[in-house]
Amino acid sequence: MTYKFNPIPRVLMGPGPSDVHPRVLRAMSAPLYGHLDPLFVQMMDEVKSMVQQCFITENLLTFVVSAPGSAGMETCLVNLLEPGDECIICVNGVFGGRMVDIAERCGAKVHRIDTEWGKVTEPDQVKKALDACPKPKLLAIVHAETSTGALQPLEEISKIVHEAGALFVVDAVTSFCGVPLEVDKWQIDAIYTGTQKCLSAPPGLSPVSFSEAAVKVLDNRKTKVQSWFLDLTMVKNYWAGAKRAYHHTAPVSSVYALHEALNIVLEEGLEARWARHQEVHQYLRKQLEARGFRFLVEEPYRLPNLNSVYLPEGCDEAALRSQLLNKYNIEVGSGLGAFAGKIWRVGIMGESATKNHVNLLTGALDELM
Amino acid sequence: MTYKFNPIPRVLMGPGPSDVHPRVLRAMSAPLYGHLDPLFVQMMDEVKSMVQQCFITENLLTFVVSAPGSAGMETCLVNLLEPGDECIICVNGVFGGRMVDIAERCGAKVHRIDTEWGKVTEPDQVKKALDACPKPKLLAIVHAETSTGALQPLEEISKIVHEAGALFVVDAVTSFCGVPLEVDKWQIDAIYTGTQKCLSAPPGLSPVSFSEAAVKVLDNRKTKVQSWFLDLTMVKNYWAGAKRAYHHTAPVSSVYALHEALNIVLEEGLEARWARHQEVHQYLRKQLEARGFRFLVEEPYRLPNLNSVYLPEGCDEAALRSQLLNKYNIEVGSGLGAFAGKIWRVGIMGESATKNHVNLLTGALDELM
Repeated sequence: MTYKFNPIPRVLMGPGPSDVHPRVLRAMSAPLYGHLDPLFVQMMDEVKSMVQQCFITENLLTFVVSAPGSAGMETCLVNLLEPGDECIICVNGVFGGRMVDIAERCGAKVHRIDTEWGKVTEPDQVKKALDACPKPKLLAIVHAETSTGALQPLEEISKIVHEAGALFVVDAVTSFCGVPLEVDKWQIDAIYTGTQKCLSAPPGLSPVSFSEAAVKVLDNRKTKVQSWFLDLTMVKNYWAGAKRAYHHTAPVSSVYALHEALNIVLEEGLEARWARHQEVHQYLRKQLEARGFRFLVEEPYRLPNLNSVYLPEGCDEAALRSQLLNKYNIEVGSGLGAFAGKIWRVGIMGESATKNHVNLLTGALDELM
Repeated sequence: MTYKFNPIPRVLMGPGPSDVHPRVLRAMSAPLYGHLDPLFVQMMDEVKSMVQQCFITENLLTFVVSAPGSAGMETCLVNLLEPGDECIICVNGVFGGRMVDIAERCGAKVHRIDTEWGKVTEPDQVKKALDACPKPKLLAIVHAETSTGALQPLEEISKIVHEAGALFVVDAVTSFCGVPLEVDKWQIDAIYTGTQKCLSAPPGLSPVSFSEAAVKVLDNRKTKVQSWFLDLTMVKNYWAGAKRAYHHTAPVSSVYALHEALNIVLEEGLEARWARHQEVHQYLRKQLEARGFRFLVEEPYRLPNLNSVYLPEGCDEAALRSQLLNKYNIEVGSGLGAFAGKIWRVGIMGESATKNHVNLLTGALDELM
């Protein structure tokens, strides 16, 4: 039995995927290279260069994990942690919690810094955690919590972490290419992101980057990395080795899409892109607040590209969200975890960060509410 | 700095990826659904149904890992093995060796059955291994060794393995949709494949299926699965749960491609597709042997879709392979491991399994040699 393939076009304003540029969609319709073709290897080099530019880093170990952002998270943790290692993980939403789960599966002893969802981790909390765990191998933190829309300041915490001699690991899945992020300047030792947020490529790949200090930790491991698929001691020979040793078959068409999406980001310019997200956020904010929506996150820590909002009194969020999808083909996100049924997450990311998108949404809301 | 995106069309006759049908390429250019959109969930159900049809199984736990075939391999092993478990792994090429590596990373005690590369594992070897390890948790074997082109008979070994009370785990990366494979009839308990071989979709996903017995083993685990990303106790709630709990963001565009590629397979019919691969293999064989190529694998165990051949005396395999690629845009595969520099692997898989492909190759060879 076969099935028709006729997807209905949606307007993607949830927590990702975001709308994808026609150039990126078209890139995937190109015939495939073999994954060891010299011209594909050259394209991988170009992707690496563009990922470095977008992370604002010169890290040599910068490449793309052949799986979604969650696999990028696992890549960072399984390669840097060994059984018995101590680490500190900041938790203020779903994704901090996921890091704890993964780190524990690595056999690490995890010290949590728990913060109320929707708020950010304060430098003082990090200092206190370091008092209780003076020599952690790493501290991991989420830059942009996709479950709450909180944007975490990183620079001060990075300094404290490095003073303690630990590696600084950052989840940039929802911040990459949408808000200021400077890997080298902020001394981030390991970072991962996804393709389906402010980069506006389809989901399925995870750009990552590791500092020299992180590579040293990797080189000095005493045990094998528990995941074969994510083992950087092997993967790096495919992405960066002189001989380009075969490891696994790279997802060629997804790399095509990523290549073109990175081109589009760099043609716009990172700073212009950050400014666009901020500008559309301010416009969205005005429109939503005028209709009785209230922001979950305090203003200084609001992620511009993913807006967590309480609905106006008396709204049935699930019914309204379903009508938006079914009558207007507009997707907004529901709350996760503690916020399920209580908030919406309205994404204006990458190609979805336009005033037209905001107007589509508010126009539909005005009819429905 | 940005880079042009203008891939040159290749003719893919290596070990994968194979040529992709224009319908599949076009499918990826469709705008994206959100990964929790009810219409995308319906598409996932359709993909599941079509994967079941192609595996010829009614296994409920049939779905698609969001990463390439190697991650499918890791999924099967990390979910079924726990530290201290004993298992038997048949090794007659690169991919059997990879299974050993992964199983050891799971903390399992691995008993290897080593067979000369290019040959297949005999039932008697399995019996002897079971004498030395009477109660293994599973026996894992490669159906079609991509590194040698050997096709492993499975039915008799499956019986022996089940008599010993073990699970039967099969790598079907290069056999799926190209040669006869019947998961339920052959009592396979866990199986994984890739999309970029005889299915002719782009690489990046791994269809898998688990029998009831395997699910029971999964349900009775004493330890957490070491990989969060590949943990079936959670992934299955996204692919098959009543509530479709969010786990990770599915690679939407790659699922589109898989959906359309599965449609094409089922429109052709599995048996017709198997017969086509066999017919083109016989044609290729005649053409290659007439030009002095010799097959590595004995006739009864030759994989029709991936032909491992020694080159005629005096040929510089690397130079010839490079000329084929650069002058004729035809990719054939080099040897792996022990066969590096010695053989070619000529793939006629999926859309690349046509007499036209064979004629392109032999025409170019006649000019070059």
